[in-house]
Order: sequence, then C-alpha cells, then structure tokens
Amino acid sequence: MAIAQTQNITTCRSNGGGSEVVLLDFWPSMFGMRVRIALAEKGIEYEYKEQDLANKSPLLLEMNPIHKKIPVLIHNGKPINESCIIVQYIDETWNDKSPLMPSDPYVRAQARFWADYVDKKVYETSKKIWTLKGEEQEKAKKEFIEILKVMEGQIGEKPYFMGESFGYADIALVTFYSWFYTFETLGNFSIEKECPKLIAWAKRCMQRESVSKTLPDSKKIYDFFIEMKTKLDL
Amino acid sequence: MAIAQTQNITTCRSNGGGSEVVLLDFWPSMFGMRVRIALAEKGIEYEYKEQDLANKSPLLLEMNPIHKKIPVLIHNGKPINESCIIVQYIDETWNDKSPLMPSDPYVRAQARFWADYVDKKVYETSKKIWTLKGEEQEKAKKEFIEILKVMEGQIGEKPYFMGESFGYADIALVTFYSWFYTFETLGNFSIEKECPKLIAWAKRCMQRESVSKTLPDSKKIYDFFIEMKTKLDL
Repeated sequence: MAIAQTQNITTCRSNGGGSEVVLLDFWPSMFGMRVRIALAEKGIEYEYKEQDLANKSPLLLEMNPIHKKIPVLIHNGKPINESCIIVQYIDETWNDKSPLMPSDPYVRAQARFWADYVDKKVYETSKKIWTLKGEEQEKAKKEFIEILKVMEGQIGEKPYFMGESFGYADIALVTFYSWFYTFETLGNFSIEKECPKLIAWAKRCMQRESVSKTLPDSKKIYDFFIEMKTKLDL
Repeated sequence: MAIAQTQNITTCRSNGGGSEVVLLDFWPSMFGMRVRIALAEKGIEYEYKEQDLANKSPLLLEMNPIHKKIPVLIHNGKPINESCIIVQYIDETWNDKSPLMPSDPYVRAQARFWADYVDKKVYETSKKIWTLKGEEQEKAKKEFIEILKVMEGQIGEKPYFMGESFGYADIALVTFYSWFYTFETLGNFSIEKECPKLIAWAKRCMQRESVSKTLPDSKKIYDFFIEMKTKLDL
C-alpha cells in the first residue's frame, strides 16, 4: 500500500549542538505536527524520517515497541514516545529559548488540562464525522462543534490559549486546523460560522513560522484522505 | 442513591503553610487515591470533602465544569482537575521535599509515558472484566494480564517503576492494586500467579505510609462494588 508514500518530505539536517535528533513521523499526522512545531519553535535541527504506517519499519518497531506509533523523537539514540510527552521533553531539554510551558505551576496545570482535553475529545469525535453517516454524522458534527466551542470559550479574547504566549496547549490543538477543511467538506458544515473566534485564534497561530511551515496545505490533506478512503474502501 | 455515602471519611485539617488545600474526592476512586498519595508524600494538610457522585454538589460542578469529575484539588480557591495533572501540580508547587518526578528530562518523559500508559489501558480494560461475560470476559482478562505484564517488564528487578525512587509512574498504577481483589473475584483469576513481580512491586509500594494509609481495604472495595452493582442493577 502506497498511502504513506504520497508525500515523502524527508529532510536531513544535522543538529549543531552536538546532539543527534531524529524524528519518525508521517506528514499528515496532527500528532507528528505537534512535535515538528515544538522543534521549529526551539530552532532544533533534526533528521526527518517519513514512515510507511502500512509497512512499519524495524526502526519504528524498535523505538516504540509498546504503541508502534509515530511520532517518535530519537535523541542521541534514545526514543521518546507520545506527542504531548515529546513536546514537554523538548521544552525541558532545550530550555534556553522559546518556553512552551507557562512558568507558573498553576497556569502550567491549566495548559496541561487543555492539551489533555484535546487528546481526550478532539480526535475521536472528529473521526466520527467521517466514519458515520446520516443522523449519526449530524450528532457527531454537533458534538465536535460543542467541543470546539468549549475551547473557544477558554481562549476568549486572549491571543493564545493561556494568554499572551503561544505554547503547549496551542500546539496540541492547532495541528487539527490543517484537517478542518477535510472535516468541513466531508460533513458539509462550516466551523468558522460556528466558532469564529477559534478560527481567528488558528489564523493567529498560523502567523508563526513554526506553525505555517509545519501545517500541510488543507487541500493536500483532503486529497490524501480521499486517496486513503478509496484504497481502504471506507 | 446512597452509594457515595457508604463511607464518609471527611477529615478537616488546616494547611500550615498559609495556603488552603481542599480535595473533592470519592473514597474508592483510584484516580482520587493518586492525589491522596501525592499529598501524603509531601506531608500537605488538606480538607477532604467526600463527594456524592450520584448527586453532584454545586462546588464540584463549579470547580470542574468541563468534566464534572473527581478528584479536584482546590488550592487557595483555584481548582486543578485530572489526577495526573494534579499530581504533577503538587510536585511542582511543593517542590521542597519528596520529589515525585525524576529530575532528568529523559527519565521524566519515561515516567510520563508509563503514567499515560496506565491511563490509556488499565481502567478501560479492567472495566471489561466486570461488564462482559463468558468468552468476552476471558478475552478481557487476557488483555488485562498482558497490559500488567508489559508494566511488570518495565519494572523488572528495580524497586520502583523508574528505578530506586518511588514516584509519579508508581502513583499512577499502585492505586489500582486496591481493586485487584475485586477484579480477581469477579473474573475468577489470580493476578499474582500471572504477574508475581508486579505484585511484589505493589507490596513494596504498600510499605510506604503514603500508600498503605491511602489505599482502602481490598474487601471494602469489593463490598462497595457489589453494593453499587446491585443498586444500579448491573
């Protein structure tokens, strides 16, 4: 199956700081994108190794034997798994610039709460939009919008999730923005109409090079999705 | 419904450090127990407010409007939700004694990985043991044992999850130990027979006062479960 090969954006870069950083990833993954944004925010050079998820590499299986999933960050030969844990690791290891976590423990707990909320709610609900049909799809769309509205309420009039600074919670959610066009097209609805402030926040995030250079074009993701859907006969 | 009232172990203590700490909790909750262990490790005095989950209090709904769940830690009037996030908050706020997180960022990422693994796998799988029957229950038991074996493999010959020090990953898992008797009785199997090293680890954790004084008696949990099952007609 060639799905994983539709884009092979492997780039090879060496890390200037004497440490070797490798990322096992898959270009349309919103979880992989989180790690790419964090690495870009920190200005870390790394080797990007695109993975074929239909035919998992011995390296991926060795570096993530428990979940066998991307993204995996390999730092000096040692793997770190799970996107939110990787982002925290990056923030704590390269702590000399662009802090991603709020410095106050209470605000940090809130940032973790929202990233956790994204992990628990957004992906599974978005999946229902394209796996269900008819009335059930309508229900899924409503549920999805409700979840987005909760987060829109948290962001409110602030520039970012936790206030003035772009960080961990923003990274956790913004990668889904690249999939919004796909969800909207498949579900025949407009997220911007329902959550204008959330879209304004996403556009604000997109003004950052770390985000705009990481998020693939929305239409490319849609094309990838349609190709995958056809191949897997969904 | 009086389920939440079977034990009302509200204790009132004031915090010596000038800060007010309140815990909204429910005594048989493995998630609530995590917070209680962390508070005990740090020697923090707090007011324990037992919650009736069948009739949620205005305070709980105000302090956790998103998930409406216990545990909630209220520190100087401000709420922190989600047990693993609360444990990290406690560790970062009262950082003068008993560190719960490893100091090395890589080991810390591993501790987070295992706590996350517990959250993703253990509760949902354990639930299947008492909700399913026959062949499906057998499958759930096998799945549960496999998950425990993965963690037993990680602990290996070490005293604790991440090595010599009791901490975050241990706290995430050990609270389930108080439910093992219930799972074993309902599923008619022995966890110790399958995972002797994991049970040895749990017993090692139980030598700590923070754990032994927090975990309710296994038979009391079983009685609670049977009472709940009868009342809810499961």
